[in-house]
Amino acid sequence: MNDVQSTIHAVKGFKVAGVHAGLKADGALDMTLIYSETPCVAAGIFTTNLVKAAPVLVDQETLAKNNTHIRAVIINTKCANACTGQQGIDNARQMQRWVAERLGIGEDEVLVMSTGVIGTQLDMTKIRHGIDLVADALGDENWEAAARAIMTTDTRPKFASWRDRNTDYVVSGIAKGAGMIAPNMATMLGIVATDLSIQADAMPAQLKTTANLTFNCISVDGDMSTNDTLLLLANGQSGIRDGVDSGVVQGVLAVCHELATSIVRDGEGATKFITINVRNAHQNTARQIANTIATSPLVKTAFYGGDANWGRIIAAAGRAGVPFDADKAELWICSGENWSAAPYPTTNDWEDPTIATCNGAIQLFAAGIALNYDEGAASQIMRSPSITVTLDCGIMNGEYSNIWTCDFSHDYVSINGHYRS
Amino acid sequence: MNDVQSTIHAVKGFKVAGVHAGLKADGALDMTLIYSETPCVAAGIFTTNLVKAAPVLVDQETLAKNNTHIRAVIINTKCANACTGQQGIDNARQMQRWVAERLGIGEDEVLVMSTGVIGTQLDMTKIRHGIDLVADALGDENWEAAARAIMTTDTRPKFASWRDRNTDYVVSGIAKGAGMIAPNMATMLGIVATDLSIQADAMPAQLKTTANLTFNCISVDGDMSTNDTLLLLANGQSGIRDGVDSGVVQGVLAVCHELATSIVRDGEGATKFITINVRNAHQNTARQIANTIATSPLVKTAFYGGDANWGRIIAAAGRAGVPFDADKAELWICSGENWSAAPYPTTNDWEDPTIATCNGAIQLFAAGIALNYDEGAASQIMRSPSITVTLDCGIMNGEYSNIWTCDFSHDYVSINGHYRS
Repeated sequence: MNDVQSTIHAVKGFKVAGVHAGLKADGALDMTLIYSETPCVAAGIFTTNLVKAAPVLVDQETLAKNNTHIRAVIINTKCANACTGQQGIDNARQMQRWVAERLGIGEDEVLVMSTGVIGTQLDMTKIRHGIDLVADALGDENWEAAARAIMTTDTRPKFASWRDRNTDYVVSGIAKGAGMIAPNMATMLGIVATDLSIQADAMPAQLKTTANLTFNCISVDGDMSTNDTLLLLANGQSGIRDGVDSGVVQGVLAVCHELATSIVRDGEGATKFITINVRNAHQNTARQIANTIATSPLVKTAFYGGDANWGRIIAAAGRAGVPFDADKAELWICSGENWSAAPYPTTNDWEDPTIATCNGAIQLFAAGIALNYDEGAASQIMRSPSITVTLDCGIMNGEYSNIWTCDFSHDYVSINGHYRS
Repeated sequence: MNDVQSTIHAVKGFKVAGVHAGLKADGALDMTLIYSETPCVAAGIFTTNLVKAAPVLVDQETLAKNNTHIRAVIINTKCANACTGQQGIDNARQMQRWVAERLGIGEDEVLVMSTGVIGTQLDMTKIRHGIDLVADALGDENWEAAARAIMTTDTRPKFASWRDRNTDYVVSGIAKGAGMIAPNMATMLGIVATDLSIQADAMPAQLKTTANLTFNCISVDGDMSTNDTLLLLANGQSGIRDGVDSGVVQGVLAVCHELATSIVRDGEGATKFITINVRNAHQNTARQIANTIATSPLVKTAFYGGDANWGRIIAAAGRAGVPFDADKAELWICSGENWSAAPYPTTNDWEDPTIATCNGAIQLFAAGIALNYDEGAASQIMRSPSITVTLDCGIMNGEYSNIWTCDFSHDYVSINGHYRS
């Protein structure tokens, strides 16, 4: 099958595990290890927040020295190891050493991720014990447990898998997060593993392009954590060499798309999945407008209330800080996700989302004024669990940007207002 | 008295009125007229949203031609006259003409403001009738009615007044708004009138500097409307000439401060008044950090919940897009508003807010890590109705920026999610 799967395929040469190491009080899985029997080429994308957690700093340093022989990734929950000073850095390096010793590999072949409360130090006794447990549990088929063991306030594990129809290579990935979820919780972690053979020097651009089409297109609350990390590991065990110079690897793109959108669907208190498609403006302009709409509390609460409030959307576009002319703009809404190809778009489909493919779309606004649309039909669309908003800027032809987001509900305020670490 | 008053002083030469013109269905006041018996020098600050309401465009054009002989300001509620195309422009100009005819002044001596629903046209029959009613009602002492007649979802009228202790000049002002309040409602309007004599060419800088210390320092939800307008009118009837080259006029500053902070206090669903003071960074840097903290949904919900969540504040600073080094930063909280001079600061006091003047301040964070502070005492501060957060960036000495904001409550979501126009 070529589609992204709800069950997760083993990836040749990778062994994974998720265990309870005693970090979480309730006995839930809390530590994950991903191990490759042979060296991986690797790339990482990290938070652009100037306040970076210790494992982010340690991974950046590690990948700068070694991006061709990565063998393992260790991940703990409960403590983000952020705002922890030199002791935090020392502890992250100690985690590298312990994993390396246990697996008989080099320290600089291990990457580290942490998620949880900011400002507390790791419990290194439990971490030490957990590394033994999780190494003992390694197996080909444990991807779902690995996904469960990185959850914090996520309500469900997030994983996705692709087996290529033509060449049989596999891409499997796990992720956690939903905006900078609960108070002291750190956001988004993602790890994508493939048995494809990819050239090391093509990896950073490959991952960046893919992230720009997926993880960088999601917004839950506009906040950004100290720990955000996305890793791509490729060990080449399938024997298949992918020509990434032709663009992104389709399986990596599909897995990242599924992981990214599943984070939005599981956004805190989210009741609706919303696609903001801003088109016919230069891509950076379109992205800035889409982001401003997607992070506007007024727009997000209107979606929650099911109000076809085009005035808020147009007003958000007008304050985005980039060129926008309401007299040239057209605004449409439809229910569902506006993708022309199901269930996963090819690279070309990503380039051409169009309102024309969207059944029952209603145009709300054109030439600077509201159209005389059917309020009842618009309200019905706004009550859908999934809504696509298309804003045609009319500035130039062809370029566009998508942002996936969710609504702002009473539950968002409850979760974030009353959480105690 | 030198203080800003809760009752409002007549301003020599100004007559005002607020009436019910039938625009609001419930019989509430809905139309305001401010009239000066002699020409005013005037300046305006308008929304930077690229989507500008018709009255904003008309006022900008009017002030460009005539900023020395303004005689009247007419304001309607219920309809924002925004996204209304050429008909909207024509209607705003018709309002100018009708007011001019009724008062026997020139068309280009009249400014127009509108607030209410976006995307509908004005009911010009009611507007015509209203102009007659409100002109008939003009009087020296009607400032509170004038303030009531511009309310939309405001829960109380906003006005402030200053009689100078030394020279007896008066500044009185009215305002409405609270972020881009309810769905289709347009935001902030402010009109400040004084009998001071101010030179016309000093007015724009005077108003801009004052706004930068007051109205530009408030944030309710980070949205910005199509109609935001602040006007300053000075008719010189007190015979007192103010040397504005020495800085801002203290009475104008105090009135604008009171109006601006009263908008935050009346923010939708607001339960707490929060001062974000970012200091020891270049002013633009400090402002960007303070704004990012003040608009972070995670920070705002934490304030609602009474959670001393320093991690969210530091993380928001880190993603503000300007230089920030957590290792040099110090974070403090205290209850109350951190102004050294009560009840209104002199110009100098505005230059030096300091945590040292704040009783019971608690330091939460320094040198990249959390301090071992008293959680109970911190929680008690966070439960106060008014809280000051001081973030010392440690980058350079002296410069700072303040932002006043409010928390994000369940009521904010209710008001904005379920409003129907």
